[in-house]
Amino acid sequence: MSSFHHRKKKKPISKKGLPPGTRIYIGEEREHKINIEVISYNELSITKYKNVDLSQIKELSPTLNHWINVNGIYDTSIIIPICDHFQIDPLTVEDLLNTNQRPKSDDFGSYVFFTLKMLETISLDGKNMNIDDEQISFLLGRNFVVSFQEKPGDVFDPIRKRFENPDSRVRKYGSDFLVYALVDVIIDDYFETMEKISSMVEVFDNEIAHKPHPNQLETIQQVKFLLLNLRKYIYPTREAVHKLARIDNPIIQAKTSKYYNDLIDHIYQILENLEIIRDMNSNQREMYASNLTLRMNRVMEVLTIISSVFIPLTFIVGVYGMNFKYMPELSHEYGYFFVWGLMISVTIGMLFFFKRKGWI
Amino acid sequence: MSSFHHRKKKKPISKKGLPPGTRIYIGEEREHKINIEVISYNELSITKYKNVDLSQIKELSPTLNHWINVNGIYDTSIIIPICDHFQIDPLTVEDLLNTNQRPKSDDFGSYVFFTLKMLETISLDGKNMNIDDEQISFLLGRNFVVSFQEKPGDVFDPIRKRFENPDSRVRKYGSDFLVYALVDVIIDDYFETMEKISSMVEVFDNEIAHKPHPNQLETIQQVKFLLLNLRKYIYPTREAVHKLARIDNPIIQAKTSKYYNDLIDHIYQILENLEIIRDMNSNQREMYASNLTLRMNRVMEVLTIISSVFIPLTFIVGVYGMNFKYMPELSHEYGYFFVWGLMISVTIGMLFFFKRKGWI
Amino acid sequence: MSSFHHRKKKKPISKKGLPPGTRIYIGEEREHKINIEVISYNELSITKYKNVDLSQIKELSPTLNHWINVNGIYDTSIIIPICDHFQIDPLTVEDLLNTNQRPKSDDFGSYVFFTLKMLETISLDGKNMNIDDEQISFLLGRNFVVSFQEKPGDVFDPIRKRFENPDSRVRKYGSDFLVYALVDVIIDDYFETMEKISSMVEVFDNEIAHKPHPNQLETIQQVKFLLLNLRKYIYPTREAVHKLARIDNPIIQAKTSKYYNDLIDHIYQILENLEIIRDMNSNQREMYASNLTLRMNRVMEVLTIISSVFIPLTFIVGVYGMNFKYMPELSHEYGYFFVWGLMISVTIGMLFFFKRKGWI
Amino acid sequence: MSSFHHRKKKKPISKKGLPPGTRIYIGEEREHKINIEVISYNELSITKYKNVDLSQIKELSPTLNHWINVNGIYDTSIIIPICDHFQIDPLTVEDLLNTNQRPKSDDFGSYVFFTLKMLETISLDGKNMNIDDEQISFLLGRNFVVSFQEKPGDVFDPIRKRFENPDSRVRKYGSDFLVYALVDVIIDDYFETMEKISSMVEVFDNEIAHKPHPNQLETIQQVKFLLLNLRKYIYPTREAVHKLARIDNPIIQAKTSKYYNDLIDHIYQILENLEIIRDMNSNQREMYASNLTLRMNRVMEVLTIISSVFIPLTFIVGVYGMNFKYMPELSHEYGYFFVWGLMISVTIGMLFFFKRKGWI
Amino acid sequence: MSSFHHRKKKKPISKKGLPPGTRIYIGEEREHKINIEVISYNELSITKYKNVDLSQIKELSPTLNHWINVNGIYDTSIIIPICDHFQIDPLTVEDLLNTNQRPKSDDFGSYVFFTLKMLETISLDGKNMNIDDEQISFLLGRNFVVSFQEKPGDVFDPIRKRFENPDSRVRKYGSDFLVYALVDVIIDDYFETMEKISSMVEVFDNEIAHKPHPNQLETIQQVKFLLLNLRKYIYPTREAVHKLARIDNPIIQAKTSKYYNDLIDHIYQILENLEIIRDMNSNQREMYASNLTLRMNRVMEVLTIISSVFIPLTFIVGVYGMNFKYMPELSHEYGYFFVWGLMISVTIGMLFFFKRKGWI
Repeated sequence: MSSFHHRKKKKPISKKGLPPGTRIYIGEEREHKINIEVISYNELSITKYKNVDLSQIKELSPTLNHWINVNGIYDTSIIIPICDHFQIDPLTVEDLLNTNQRPKSDDFGSYVFFTLKMLETISLDGKNMNIDDEQISFLLGRNFVVSFQEKPGDVFDPIRKRFENPDSRVRKYGSDFLVYALVDVIIDDYFETMEKISSMVEVFDNEIAHKPHPNQLETIQQVKFLLLNLRKYIYPTREAVHKLARIDNPIIQAKTSKYYNDLIDHIYQILENLEIIRDMNSNQREMYASNLTLRMNRVMEVLTIISSVFIPLTFIVGVYGMNFKYMPELSHEYGYFFVWGLMISVTIGMLFFFKRKGWI
Repeated sequence: MSSFHHRKKKKPISKKGLPPGTRIYIGEEREHKINIEVISYNELSITKYKNVDLSQIKELSPTLNHWINVNGIYDTSIIIPICDHFQIDPLTVEDLLNTNQRPKSDDFGSYVFFTLKMLETISLDGKNMNIDDEQISFLLGRNFVVSFQEKPGDVFDPIRKRFENPDSRVRKYGSDFLVYALVDVIIDDYFETMEKISSMVEVFDNEIAHKPHPNQLETIQQVKFLLLNLRKYIYPTREAVHKLARIDNPIIQAKTSKYYNDLIDHIYQILENLEIIRDMNSNQREMYASNLTLRMNRVMEVLTIISSVFIPLTFIVGVYGMNFKYMPELSHEYGYFFVWGLMISVTIGMLFFFKRKGWI
Repeated sequence: MSSFHHRKKKKPISKKGLPPGTRIYIGEEREHKINIEVISYNELSITKYKNVDLSQIKELSPTLNHWINVNGIYDTSIIIPICDHFQIDPLTVEDLLNTNQRPKSDDFGSYVFFTLKMLETISLDGKNMNIDDEQISFLLGRNFVVSFQEKPGDVFDPIRKRFENPDSRVRKYGSDFLVYALVDVIIDDYFETMEKISSMVEVFDNEIAHKPHPNQLETIQQVKFLLLNLRKYIYPTREAVHKLARIDNPIIQAKTSKYYNDLIDHIYQILENLEIIRDMNSNQREMYASNLTLRMNRVMEVLTIISSVFIPLTFIVGVYGMNFKYMPELSHEYGYFFVWGLMISVTIGMLFFFKRKGWI
Repeated sequence: MSSFHHRKKKKPISKKGLPPGTRIYIGEEREHKINIEVISYNELSITKYKNVDLSQIKELSPTLNHWINVNGIYDTSIIIPICDHFQIDPLTVEDLLNTNQRPKSDDFGSYVFFTLKMLETISLDGKNMNIDDEQISFLLGRNFVVSFQEKPGDVFDPIRKRFENPDSRVRKYGSDFLVYALVDVIIDDYFETMEKISSMVEVFDNEIAHKPHPNQLETIQQVKFLLLNLRKYIYPTREAVHKLARIDNPIIQAKTSKYYNDLIDHIYQILENLEIIRDMNSNQREMYASNLTLRMNRVMEVLTIISSVFIPLTFIVGVYGMNFKYMPELSHEYGYFFVWGLMISVTIGMLFFFKRKGWI
Repeated sequence: MSSFHHRKKKKPISKKGLPPGTRIYIGEEREHKINIEVISYNELSITKYKNVDLSQIKELSPTLNHWINVNGIYDTSIIIPICDHFQIDPLTVEDLLNTNQRPKSDDFGSYVFFTLKMLETISLDGKNMNIDDEQISFLLGRNFVVSFQEKPGDVFDPIRKRFENPDSRVRKYGSDFLVYALVDVIIDDYFETMEKISSMVEVFDNEIAHKPHPNQLETIQQVKFLLLNLRKYIYPTREAVHKLARIDNPIIQAKTSKYYNDLIDHIYQILENLEIIRDMNSNQREMYASNLTLRMNRVMEVLTIISSVFIPLTFIVGVYGMNFKYMPELSHEYGYFFVWGLMISVTIGMLFFFKRKGWI
């Protein structure tokens, strides 16, 4: 049987009663080393730093643009000082550290906060699939972008490569374009996830149509649930990008607005794909219900055919099993064979009747 | 069997024909002593009073902020004079005293009124759950907050603790922040309630999938009803907070708006959780219907198999129970054993047929 | 069997081809005497007149406020002259006289027109219910309110009583407050109707759960229909009050707007109750369908159990009814008792099997 | 069996590839003589012309108002010159000539175009119904109204009669009021159609409840389809009248706006009636499905009762049909009668059991 | 069995990680020769060029209007230089080359981009249907229109013909009118596709009503899917044309706005047709489910009738097959014939009962 799962996060640590802006990590326990990587760039020069610490961040030149990528958020003793350096509001830091946060964007004047989910699809064997989500957040200032990943990963490698090329737009444009480019990579991933789900759902479609089985309902419901979870991520992401494109803050420049619009266009296309898979899923649900009824119909037809053929025959042989003293047929020499003839005729008649009904 | 109940309030006392603004208590009968507690504070000092009476309230210093918490509303002889002291409109007092009031916020110029429900979950044994609701109302003036609880409770204790700390924002910010902090505590409770319902619905999910029973429909409908009742509370609460955040009244200061937005964000997240539980519930409903059909299918299959095997056999033995004078098989020495052979072959054939159909 | 009916009005007299503003009565035939009652009041004095005629209305003092209550609209020879005296547009009079008019409010400059339905519930015996509606219309001018009832009734008595009290707001405020007070009485009636329907639907709920019967569907559909009809009245009433509260006409004073808002609040609460009853109704519909399937399942189980037990037994006795010359068991002394033993074993085996399936 | 049909128009002549504004007739073939009738009027005088031709139209006095009624549109050689005389845009003429046009209104500055459908109900015998639609279009200028009917008919006779009366508003008001009056007549017709459908659906309701039959689904679906088609006409008509009432063009005078609002009110009422019939239809659909299941239940109950009574009896008689040498009961003198007693007891027991189950 | 397919495009080449505005072709592999055709025109003159290359495009006179039609987009080495010549933004070119692009319109200041789908219906034999879509894009500048087709085709021939006529509006109006005319041709094609689908669905309707078969569900779901896919194209097309009509850019002149409105009107009509076919489809789905139940009912009725007739008869003959020593009937001379009489009576009684139930 196929299976489609969306891995559930651990339950959040209860924050009940804590003051707002309490900056604690909410998410899975992790133990990897948090690595901070910085790319300082303008059109002319580019410098890459690995394993950066706070003191180095404090010394970054204000005349260059900086992309600071932090690949872990579980350790607040590292994250909070960085946020404090950039004068980030505690409410933002609280959202940043909560891996159950809904996708959203917020303008805080001196910086813009944007958070969304990255999807990681683990297709076990073409029939079973686990989807894992990772929270990615961005702090976008006039000349810096800080990106936070939940765990180390290579999703941003294509952007790192593009930085090599001095003619690329990531080098020429500002931090707002860099955020666009980073988000675009994540959104492209959604396309791939959709494609994978779609093709697996198609395989499953075939299974339902040709090998109906009562426990397929469970898989159908898993797919439904998976799609609902994805919708829960993608709709607010669309809203967040919309809001980002409309923000009245010089950090977001007019010339990048067409790129944000392009992004919105992509998200619309992903949502349309999602809706099509949802329609396939609802068709499967209907096909399943129809299969149950068809199976019942076939069971009933078998019962009806066998009963209808043999019950009259049993009656006939019962007649001649009676012990009446005077039953003329019994003493007839060919009586027995006549009865067989009668029974064969009845059977043929019945079968002919069922044939015409289309049951056999 | 599991059960999920939302305790129903007593029927309201009919107010038909009474003039608007008639200030009578509508709700469950209560007899506890109404306690009034006051915290008078500013950034520098804090004073706590217990068992306060009206005369003490009248003498509160106009240069301090005051949080007046009233833990009972059944006695209008206590409530109305307090409201009169703060010049509260009779229509507001009418809403305050009606425990069936929908969550809402209203700006009356000199004060803002906000009312919502607190949820109290009593999980009896991990499978049964009672949800009780309590109405909490706030009167928010320039330098005071009056909070009204239906009955004594410790829900605001975390806020009382935060007052101890002179650096905490409740001390430094005004009455609008205090209301935010109090509401935040209540909303955090909703998260916990959702979490509890969710985990109990998951347990029940398992029961439906593996131990189907006709009376599970009742529980499914109880959950549906419970969720509808919660929606009925949470949607207007969201509207009320939205309205509060947009009120054009100096009582609500610009700098607290980001906190109200944070609150709205939390309510959205609660609503998303609610929708996911609703989807689980609708899946259970579908699973239940499918279980009924499957059960029918299995019953029919058993009937069909037994009938189809024995009806032909009964016919065969009927044939040789006939009393024809001339039936050659009867006098054959091994006739009886041949018939047994025939019957065993028919049985094996039938079973093979059902095996191929997947019914056994 | 329970029943829930909404009494249908007589078919309207066809107005096809008549010019707009043709002022004819459309509604049930009535024959009661039309009584006109006037209360002329200000803060200082109050005078009540009964059985008023047109000439008296023409002499009413322009310096007082007047409430003119007309308890019948079937006689256009009485209604039209009154309307002409107050210079009411023929289109308004047409709506006034049409008892099938949707609830609405319209501002005509010199007066405001407001019409809605009053509900009259006749609960025959706690299980059967008839709902009757009566149209109530108001003409609201600077210093007068004309209210039109379809038939005599005491619904406005609480307001009449409040007029006795010189401190009551109906005395101190203007005609806009009076209309509010009158409408408030009618809306309070809706609460009561909802309460009655709700408790009868709950009784019926119990009946469906514990005494399922095929003809309960009819009652379920009656309730659905009744609720749809109520929705049809309440939604446009809400719109009409909304419009009234926003009308830019000095007849509606700013200080009464909070009362209108309170009214809207009440209508929202009625709609929420309505939606909850609708949910109960849809649950009953589902419960009904599930009951039908359960009944089928039980029928099939009985058939299956009886057939499965006796069909094999019949086969066994058939075997020993065969007339073969050579059947060793037949001549065995205890053969007959062995067969009984076999048959009892088969029966016990079958019953054990059904027990395990949970069918018995 | 009842039937409800909406007559389908002939397929449109393909206009693919023709330039926009190509003025060709699209609709059913017709051969009647096209008659043009003119009423020239103002408050003081009125002149009626029949069988008017283009030259006469060209000489109509510019100081009078004119209503030009054209009762046929199939002959473009007549229609186009008239339109050209009034300087009508080819796009308007194209819409005018296309009998599949959706209801709409358009402001072209010097004139306003309005088109809608008239319904013609042919109730054959109280159970079967054909609905035919006819397109009616209006060109509304400063001092003229040109109305186009698809075929001759007397629908506008009431308006013609009102013209006789010099005090009637059609005489006193301008062309915008005339269009209102003409449309009002058509809308009144919708009320009658709704009334007819409603009463026939009620008759059918009764049939479904008391004489269920498998082929009632077809009629239920016909009604559903009919109502969908009507919705398709009425919703855009409402939009078109709304737009007409809001058009900023001196042709539509302020003082007629209240009449247009009255029209919109009527359309709302028609839509409400439509929705109620739709609810009846959906109830019938549900009743039908429930009837199918009930029928199945009854079939199964009959089978179960007969099988359950006779299968055990057949077993009993089978027992005593066995040929064992030693069967003490067989030689008992009253054995046969004891067996009958046993069988009667079993039968009574079974019937009692089914009685208690409520199956007989 | 009927079939309705919408041909799926090849999977897109993954663009993950590529910078935005990367101009690569995404679509089916094609190998036809790309032909560029230019019509240069104004009101006075017209010149047609075939097999144009880039150098010729560069020399086109700026005082004439030009329609450049490119019938292939797979070869970026041809497409990109043309776009560069007209200074088209890389993001536009990216969309142009992606055959999975949603219909949309975008204003880039110096040009307007518009893309939509053309439908190609291949009705194999009146029962089976393939729908193929082709992307058509337009670049609309002050004096030029560049149209891109995915593959060669004659869809624009009617427009080419209209160019011959110096009085036609395509000659007299500017490029905005030309785009309108080209899109109009494509939209007219949608009408035809709808007509074809509609008539095939009607044929299928008949099949479901009169020759029900379990595998019709597959075709019903294919139609549902096909219609969902068409909706996916038509709704954004409507949005795109709406946006085009509202664009504040001198390229779109005020006088063409009425033509765009006409186009929107057509799209609305197509959507209404689509909704009607969707309703037919949902009716078929319901009819199918009802057919399954009816079939089951008929199977059960046959079983019940045959069982109910023969089971009692078998009991009767069983009675007289008993071997009791003392059974008075057995020795009666006409016993055997009495039994036959009894059995015939029982049979007639049963048949009469079933007749009254309406089962035979």
